[in-house]
Amino acid sequence: MKAMIINQFGDSNVFTLADIAKPDIKAGHVLVQVAATSVNAVDTMIRQMGPDLPLSPAAPAVLGMDFAGTVEAVGEGVSHFAVGDEVYGCAGGLTHLPGSLAEYILADAKLIALKPKNLSMHEAAALPLVAITAYEGLDRAQIKPGQNVLVHGGSGGVGHIALQLARYFGANVFSTGGGDKQMALIEALGASSINYKTETVADYVQKHTQGAGFDVIFDSVGGTNLLNSFEAAALNGQIATTVSLLELDLSGAHFKGLSLHVVFMLIPMLHDHKREAHGNILAKLADIIEAGHLRPVLDEQTFSLEEVGKAHDRFASGQGLGKVVIDV
Amino acid sequence: MKAMIINQFGDSNVFTLADIAKPDIKAGHVLVQVAATSVNAVDTMIRQMGPDLPLSPAAPAVLGMDFAGTVEAVGEGVSHFAVGDEVYGCAGGLTHLPGSLAEYILADAKLIALKPKNLSMHEAAALPLVAITAYEGLDRAQIKPGQNVLVHGGSGGVGHIALQLARYFGANVFSTGGGDKQMALIEALGASSINYKTETVADYVQKHTQGAGFDVIFDSVGGTNLLNSFEAAALNGQIATTVSLLELDLSGAHFKGLSLHVVFMLIPMLHDHKREAHGNILAKLADIIEAGHLRPVLDEQTFSLEEVGKAHDRFASGQGLGKVVIDV
Repeated sequence: MKAMIINQFGDSNVFTLADIAKPDIKAGHVLVQVAATSVNAVDTMIRQMGPDLPLSPAAPAVLGMDFAGTVEAVGEGVSHFAVGDEVYGCAGGLTHLPGSLAEYILADAKLIALKPKNLSMHEAAALPLVAITAYEGLDRAQIKPGQNVLVHGGSGGVGHIALQLARYFGANVFSTGGGDKQMALIEALGASSINYKTETVADYVQKHTQGAGFDVIFDSVGGTNLLNSFEAAALNGQIATTVSLLELDLSGAHFKGLSLHVVFMLIPMLHDHKREAHGNILAKLADIIEAGHLRPVLDEQTFSLEEVGKAHDRFASGQGLGKVVIDV
Repeated sequence: MKAMIINQFGDSNVFTLADIAKPDIKAGHVLVQVAATSVNAVDTMIRQMGPDLPLSPAAPAVLGMDFAGTVEAVGEGVSHFAVGDEVYGCAGGLTHLPGSLAEYILADAKLIALKPKNLSMHEAAALPLVAITAYEGLDRAQIKPGQNVLVHGGSGGVGHIALQLARYFGANVFSTGGGDKQMALIEALGASSINYKTETVADYVQKHTQGAGFDVIFDSVGGTNLLNSFEAAALNGQIATTVSLLELDLSGAHFKGLSLHVVFMLIPMLHDHKREAHGNILAKLADIIEAGHLRPVLDEQTFSLEEVGKAHDRFASGQGLGKVVIDV
């Protein structure tokens, strides 16, 4: 089958078109003909950092985590998928699991679900990694109707889904962005936008929560921005983040009695740990999407499989808005 | 009324016997004749640090947070307590709330509960602050039956309650201690003891969880010991701690996708925030205690109100085991 492989790690030119063996079907898995895949930050990090990142595969490797496609073969013991089913998931592209930058991917059936019927393959491929991440964060933060929820980075991949899901869960949603285009998207998705470049944390906490702070914060920026989250949180507030690879002053979390939930959504893939949780979340998300409460925002540019390097460049440029999708 | 007050902050000699006005009853409150109080770390920190700690009262002040005693007067709007009721709680000794090192304390009725019937006043006074802290931590960590739970500092004030509650909730409980006396107490309370001075984290994680890590960790030591908790935690494990006033490397929490819950149990008192939660927890704890699942461990030495300085010294010495109680 056709695949864009990498023989070494580095810049976006490392991808090469190759003809490699189509995976054999195996028990508990489905073989999916890939229709589309999308670019996530972790894909670009693995491509760049290689062995410096503990989750990178050895070269030569097929990267690409997300996919939407059609089931071509069903392994022993898999009862809930059939040949011809349209599915979506995040099931490869790291350590020992070949990815979706190929005509076919062998996916653990526990990690995937039926594609939302009202989305094209192109649209569905944008969702799995970011939508599972957003869902897990809000779920672990025990989001409740009527709460004030702040999403940091609400125009980003994870953020724009977290924002819509928080609204779906009945929260009053506020979101930070850093430019007119970002703020407009946040408003279009139904949240109140906050320009973090012109408003201080104290100001927007006062303005939107009368100084009480936000009950739940999804910090998709993370890192040192967590200090802003500590400042913006209510007493006993819940903060979910995707980035905590740093040394951080936790004093702000102490006197407020905060909870910090680190979402690292690759765990089920990496450690074969509770993989069924991801299939279950994707099935719930499909219901939410089909009911019209959630949609992916896509970058205006699209790419073919052979153009994956350009797709990575587009992602890294920060010029686009919405997920960068590759049609396979 | 008689009280041990402090006119300035400093060492354990700052306490002075004084005759001060008995508090007037007020709406939503009960006036309690104090029978006993106990020493907590935060009491000694306030006495020592004074204005350097944001929760200290201005001198002259009556310190002392925990108490057990008898209701002498009931304020307007309080329907669930009557004169003569034996109660326990943690309801003063900081900022604007006078404490329990006195013959009487005026307590917000939302913060207290009926004393467990099978405990003496002396025993009940040992519990409120540490037991609410332990309960809140395990509750926020969503402890479940059958989980492997690790308590760091299981022979300490908060730790020895967390350990018993974790057993009550159906967990398999393991606990670190640093000496024969501590280990013996941990075993006597029904947990498996781990000597942190002779066993590495990797060793005891392997021994007790086959390398998978603990599902829930109550880290009553906190601070840099949180790094040991990150190492000992299972994937997506839950860590509750009482001490996070530091800069800490969160990388260990990142790749495991951990949740960190900071328990700062003074919030309801300090901020008049959800105080009814504390009364509710104390009522639940009374049920658990009366059913025989939880008991306070008391230091072999006891002290009178006038000896509060000596009680603080005893607490600080680390020579005792169990809570230091003062009979008023």
